[in-house]
Amino acid sequence: MHLDNDTFLRALRKQKTEYTPIWLMRQAGRYLPEYMATRTKAGSFMGLATSPQFATEVTLQPVDRYPLDAAILFSDILTVPDAMGLDLSFVAGEGPKFSKAVRDEESVRALFSPDPTEKLGYVMEAVKQIRKALNGRIPLIGFSGSPFTLATYMVEGGSTRDFRLTKNMLYKRPDLLHKILDVNCKAVTDYLNAQIEAGVQAVMIFDTWGGILSHADYLEFSLDYMERIVQSLDVGTDEEKVPVILFTKGSGAWLKELGNSGAEAIGVDWTVGLKQAREAMEDKVALQGNLDPAVLFASEDSIRCQARKVIDDFGMVGQGGHVFNLGHGVDKAVLPESVGILVDEVHKYSRKYHQ
Amino acid sequence: MHLDNDTFLRALRKQKTEYTPIWLMRQAGRYLPEYMATRTKAGSFMGLATSPQFATEVTLQPVDRYPLDAAILFSDILTVPDAMGLDLSFVAGEGPKFSKAVRDEESVRALFSPDPTEKLGYVMEAVKQIRKALNGRIPLIGFSGSPFTLATYMVEGGSTRDFRLTKNMLYKRPDLLHKILDVNCKAVTDYLNAQIEAGVQAVMIFDTWGGILSHADYLEFSLDYMERIVQSLDVGTDEEKVPVILFTKGSGAWLKELGNSGAEAIGVDWTVGLKQAREAMEDKVALQGNLDPAVLFASEDSIRCQARKVIDDFGMVGQGGHVFNLGHGVDKAVLPESVGILVDEVHKYSRKYHQ
Repeated sequence: MHLDNDTFLRALRKQKTEYTPIWLMRQAGRYLPEYMATRTKAGSFMGLATSPQFATEVTLQPVDRYPLDAAILFSDILTVPDAMGLDLSFVAGEGPKFSKAVRDEESVRALFSPDPTEKLGYVMEAVKQIRKALNGRIPLIGFSGSPFTLATYMVEGGSTRDFRLTKNMLYKRPDLLHKILDVNCKAVTDYLNAQIEAGVQAVMIFDTWGGILSHADYLEFSLDYMERIVQSLDVGTDEEKVPVILFTKGSGAWLKELGNSGAEAIGVDWTVGLKQAREAMEDKVALQGNLDPAVLFASEDSIRCQARKVIDDFGMVGQGGHVFNLGHGVDKAVLPESVGILVDEVHKYSRKYHQ
Repeated sequence: MHLDNDTFLRALRKQKTEYTPIWLMRQAGRYLPEYMATRTKAGSFMGLATSPQFATEVTLQPVDRYPLDAAILFSDILTVPDAMGLDLSFVAGEGPKFSKAVRDEESVRALFSPDPTEKLGYVMEAVKQIRKALNGRIPLIGFSGSPFTLATYMVEGGSTRDFRLTKNMLYKRPDLLHKILDVNCKAVTDYLNAQIEAGVQAVMIFDTWGGILSHADYLEFSLDYMERIVQSLDVGTDEEKVPVILFTKGSGAWLKELGNSGAEAIGVDWTVGLKQAREAMEDKVALQGNLDPAVLFASEDSIRCQARKVIDDFGMVGQGGHVFNLGHGVDKAVLPESVGILVDEVHKYSRKYHQ
């Protein structure tokens, strides 16, 4: 299919681009007044996420405001466990809650991988409407939480600071945790395949919490399942192949293994230097990242200076592809103009590395 | 001086030992009923920390209960900014609070490095009393927060989840943050030297929050100051030299630089494999760590199994020294018997690597 701007996809495929493309995790979010207006109309976060019309509206908002190089489907990683019947809700000030948690033999046995076209049909409908609204301007990214990250919410019954219940299960009943991860692996694979079928042009797996594990446990309980997903996606072939991006927050100690995961690109947070990541992964993959999100609270000069540091750290493109991003999502208190400054600087400054 | 058990010091010096020594961060703490009893007597956390008698009592509690290979001074890293006049208190359920925060030119200019023998005399008195009470059984570790970690509390005015104010200062006014770090560097150096003078036999610098920084910022705002401290400590020479341990939580991406810091030993958290850490640091230093503290919530079998994995991961001692520890402090909800199981397993299982 034709795209007016396919810079993002070319960078993921490590092909020549004119500049470093940029999109931002949580680019459609609470820092944008137009997002808050749509959310008010929708009544609740789940009202927003489950309506294809509202999801389309907020997905387009940041790409209408800034010359971003990719749009990302507006949704939540917890829609998958919700579709498993765990009943997700968002309590104001407390974050996500499931009315059912998965902590014992019985609840693990009751788990099933939902049919995404049935239980998550609203997401696929949103993908179709967004593609139509984008009309070939830029690519659309689909996404899912990783099996392990979803499992933490399912076991804890919501957000947690210490992952006590998840780790209790991991150390006391690793067999139970593996059963949950097996189901999640199938569910995420089906879900991402349905998104690809519906029209997303790249997919990203968010492993927000894999970084709480030991090195060996990360490989066994998180990366292994992500690799299985990468191998099972219907990504097509050649020029039309849908690139896969893996992102584990706090993965600085495991770069080498991530580079061999089979994904086209690895997202890294700001604690990892991009030069060092290129070396550790031997330029086998494209890299996505990795400005500290807190930079967006700084002055215009600082934002420009810190963005240049990230681009300089990646350095000459050569055999590598770089997609600029933050190391984590845009904070709700960021001023919208700061995002505009960042996009502008990345587009302008990076040209010298793409001659 | 004579020590009945100097295994810990020999491991730090990479000398031969009969087994892998173990102590635990926060080994004197709320999981112990005898600690809770002393704390009740003391009336408050600060009442406990500022009384040499109570500090001695709780420092000895875990080493009386378990055959640990080192004692660590009971104190808090925030006694140093308290001695700078920022007025520390602990609000129940909210953690530490300073009545004065350090956020602008004026408050930075007013900062001073306190005379430790005057303002922190209660700590030195505790060191002397603990040494007397230990009576040569095992070595005593002294400690301080790192300049950067102390600065986060001073800028935020207490604990924080997002480090917003610290990062605002780092990106907008790095000169101000460097001024705070300069004062902290001098204060920590003087404080640790006073502890050594009073009798501690090893020192550890806790860089709890350096891991929130980007690679380049970590080197500039945290590691550089710790290296200056290492160079300025009056550690003595040869066999009587006081070993220095640096610990940065979340330092998996920066192992190489830590290995070249000049410290005798580097503490690592559980996300870093010990084998990988040995390779990255080329066995230049001893390693301390790194069991996931959450393992202490598991069954006896799991605790023993996970402890063996850490010891196996370090592998044959050869040119390296290993001090067993957790990757973070003992949680208050841990059962005291679980700590006993861990100490027992480490002492027994590690012998095969020390033939």
